[in-house]
Amino acid sequence: MSIISVNTRNQFQGRVVGINRSPVVSEIEVETAAGIINAVVTTSSIERLGLRVGDEAVALFKATEVLIARLGGPGNG
Amino acid sequence: MSIISVNTRNQFQGRVVGINRSPVVSEIEVETAAGIINAVVTTSSIERLGLRVGDEAVALFKATEVLIARLGGPGNG
Amino acid sequence: MSIISVNTRNQFQGRVVGINRSPVVSEIEVETAAGIINAVVTTSSIERLGLRVGDEAVALFKATEVLIARLGGPGNG
Amino acid sequence: MSIISVNTRNQFQGRVVGINRSPVVSEIEVETAAGIINAVVTTSSIERLGLRVGDEAVALFKATEVLIARLGGPGNG
Amino acid sequence: MSIISVNTRNQFQGRVVGINRSPVVSEIEVETAAGIINAVVTTSSIERLGLRVGDEAVALFKATEVLIARLGGPGNG
Amino acid sequence: MSIISVNTRNQFQGRVVGINRSPVVSEIEVETAAGIINAVVTTSSIERLGLRVGDEAVALFKATEVLIARLGGPGNG
Repeated sequence: MSIISVNTRNQFQGRVVGINRSPVVSEIEVETAAGIINAVVTTSSIERLGLRVGDEAVALFKATEVLIARLGGPGNG
Repeated sequence: MSIISVNTRNQFQGRVVGINRSPVVSEIEVETAAGIINAVVTTSSIERLGLRVGDEAVALFKATEVLIARLGGPGNG
Repeated sequence: MSIISVNTRNQFQGRVVGINRSPVVSEIEVETAAGIINAVVTTSSIERLGLRVGDEAVALFKATEVLIARLGGPGNG
Repeated sequence: MSIISVNTRNQFQGRVVGINRSPVVSEIEVETAAGIINAVVTTSSIERLGLRVGDEAVALFKATEVLIARLGGPGNG
Repeated sequence: MSIISVNTRNQFQGRVVGINRSPVVSEIEVETAAGIINAVVTTSSIERLGLRVGDEAVALFKATEVLIARLGGPGNG
Repeated sequence: MSIISVNTRNQFQGRVVGINRSPVVSEIEVETAAGIINAVVTTSSIERLGLRVGDEAVALFKATEVLIARLGGPGNG
């Protein structure tokens, strides 16, 4: 696990406010300026990072993973 | 294209502030409370939605797509 | 959770025929005209949507997530 | 490029009915029993597979990439 | 589950060296020439493939899923 | 773009051996110990990182993005 600069601009800093663990994957809630970002990651990767509730963290995701929608429907714009 | 409620909590409302088009895919910038969210979507899907700069939009993504990081390295927490 | 129109064309309507729950993520089977589509989503998001077996649902996914293959190998076309 | 059996159940067979090429990525439309499935893949991978309009193809995607939605909103079930 | 040739070039052959099962999803470790590749897949798909520790397997992923980073930061190149 | 430690174990170090640019997205080839890893990222993110052919880079991806396959078919193990 190296210290790196990742290409994506979608990086949101916040604080871990919830970790819901299960044996293989866990759900992490990061409170950011835009509200909670939810992540599902392997439980082993949480342990490698040593993440605990209250820690600062960065939630990041690729632009190719983002869907775009309109409120209410195509005709409401 | 139906009007739907999607399961993910990762839905961030904002305003389209940039569209960089190319023949197959385009990049959309949505300005949200947390800053810009970048999306790469098919150009045809932008046309189906009729999206233009200045429109309100929602950027959404699954929790399984989000990576979690620490600032600086594992030892800085 | 707003009511929205999502950009992707990959939206398949059907009926929920199976939900396999676990504490963090659950597997949902949606029976569509093309057969079963399988989804792994957070268990909390199923509860937010109030999804039960027998409900109508839409399975959707981005075009960037789809792989393309040939039956048997490159030389069989 | 080996001949393989992939784990995902989300495999839909059909016929390529459109290829929209650009230098880096291309959009492929596969007509299946459920309707068109759209894929964005690298243009080089289309050439490796030798895919042309009219060919049979399989569109596949992981269950973790699928979002689930309700028509109309959470209260319509 | 057909026998297919998949478009992506990101296909790495190796040996299954670990399977961490849970009711819905499981984590698989495939030892390749580059080191361990980790996969989270549905437990039912492992059973369909009949995968066991010691088996040969191929780990594959789309180019659109890969992030690129620099060691240490943007200024270290 | 902060300097961070990302949770995923799927991080492969190598050297950039090809960049195929287009206006919105570009394809990057990173030569690693396991062979070439292909990435499609936004062209703007390559510029933010200042990546050029010959640079060292890390290719990373989430475990949830990886599919697992068997060579030849389910019965060959």
